[in-house]
Amino acid sequence: MVVYLVGAGPGDPELITLKAVKALEKADVVIYDRLANEEILKHAKGAKLIYVGKKAGEHYKSQDEINHILVEEAKNNSVVVRLKGGDPFVFGRGGEEVLTLLDEGLEVEMIPGVTSAIGVPTTIGLPVTHRGVATSFTVVTGHEDPTKKEKQVKWDYTADTVVVLMGIGQIKENTEELMKYRDPKTPVCVIENGTSPEEKIILGTLENIAQKEINPPALLVIGNVVDVFKQINQIK
Amino acid sequence: MVVYLVGAGPGDPELITLKAVKALEKADVVIYDRLANEEILKHAKGAKLIYVGKKAGEHYKSQDEINHILVEEAKNNSVVVRLKGGDPFVFGRGGEEVLTLLDEGLEVEMIPGVTSAIGVPTTIGLPVTHRGVATSFTVVTGHEDPTKKEKQVKWDYTADTVVVLMGIGQIKENTEELMKYRDPKTPVCVIENGTSPEEKIILGTLENIAQKEINPPALLVIGNVVDVFKQINQIK
Repeated sequence: MVVYLVGAGPGDPELITLKAVKALEKADVVIYDRLANEEILKHAKGAKLIYVGKKAGEHYKSQDEINHILVEEAKNNSVVVRLKGGDPFVFGRGGEEVLTLLDEGLEVEMIPGVTSAIGVPTTIGLPVTHRGVATSFTVVTGHEDPTKKEKQVKWDYTADTVVVLMGIGQIKENTEELMKYRDPKTPVCVIENGTSPEEKIILGTLENIAQKEINPPALLVIGNVVDVFKQINQIK
Repeated sequence: MVVYLVGAGPGDPELITLKAVKALEKADVVIYDRLANEEILKHAKGAKLIYVGKKAGEHYKSQDEINHILVEEAKNNSVVVRLKGGDPFVFGRGGEEVLTLLDEGLEVEMIPGVTSAIGVPTTIGLPVTHRGVATSFTVVTGHEDPTKKEKQVKWDYTADTVVVLMGIGQIKENTEELMKYRDPKTPVCVIENGTSPEEKIILGTLENIAQKEINPPALLVIGNVVDVFKQINQIK
């Protein structure tokens, strides 16, 4: 009766850790969100696979429903893997799931993953920190519940680099907010489908990036490190 | 003639990615920094191993010397792995090394790793983001060159969670700076030797953490997510 809360990494199925693979190999049940690449599931041979992610146009499971499935499966199986893209504690609601399982007296072990926030930029040669350019970076969610009255995300981030995850749906509003605190000419790099064969890179600035054609899933990297990316990739 | 710039993860040798293992298996030469666990090097059977990290009390190689070794080895071997703890672009000077290699016409491929900044907190049940508690986090280096006249690190970070890497040597100065912007009672969790058998967790607040006995390598997580860690680990 153990639940492994596992990070699947940013998309490329080879960017999963050895520890995650071992957990999948032991799993009786794998409960997984939408993954960039389902090839990762091949490590869980013979396991029951339960998809709880979103499906376009269909009803998808609420967090309460997911918590309920987790608890039921954990009570009825020896090894359950809860698999999430990236790292389970970077905007994955992993903390809530852990607390729910612990409340039921179940054992949980966390296995970190390569977060998209860093793994995707690193893969394309975009260093989120760089000597003389950036000694700090902030990672923030660009998707805040639109029904919330008081916004928790304020956008006045002072770190040198800002990485916005899940930031495409609200890119216009978010870049407008960011321009209250940063030069509109600040370079921005958008990476669609990072670390996958469908990867696409779109360059711009805070003031023009929202006008470009961008399709989710994508993340934004904002700051002068984008110029280092251009230098590394010899883009003028 | 390819150099793989590879992240080794936060310490636990199983927290390396499959892709990193594949690169090590192909390597003729591995040029590595101080690693939390050298067991990772076992994947590079037969490769020449060159250590360029720090050694207590001894001369250690400057970045120029490391760059020189990288270029020479890359010119004389088919596959060189440059192995760094965590992710190569999170305070690893990876960007500088890539630019040096490209200037010499050499090919470089980046393989991200689990950064300690996230992987270490996740492993102990400390979510850097948590619904209703933290929708953003900043990662910053606590070790700034003391000879620099103008400090690049300002400490007025507005993200909900702040993670300080390499922050022990200057913990007193840095927490004093942080208290200019944050409540002195803000909870802090220090993790020494994260993800290793020697792991040690020290809890405190911004105003008292610098008085505790802490030994590097360690990182600090600052913010209300530390209360979620306490809840998950049933610490009162």
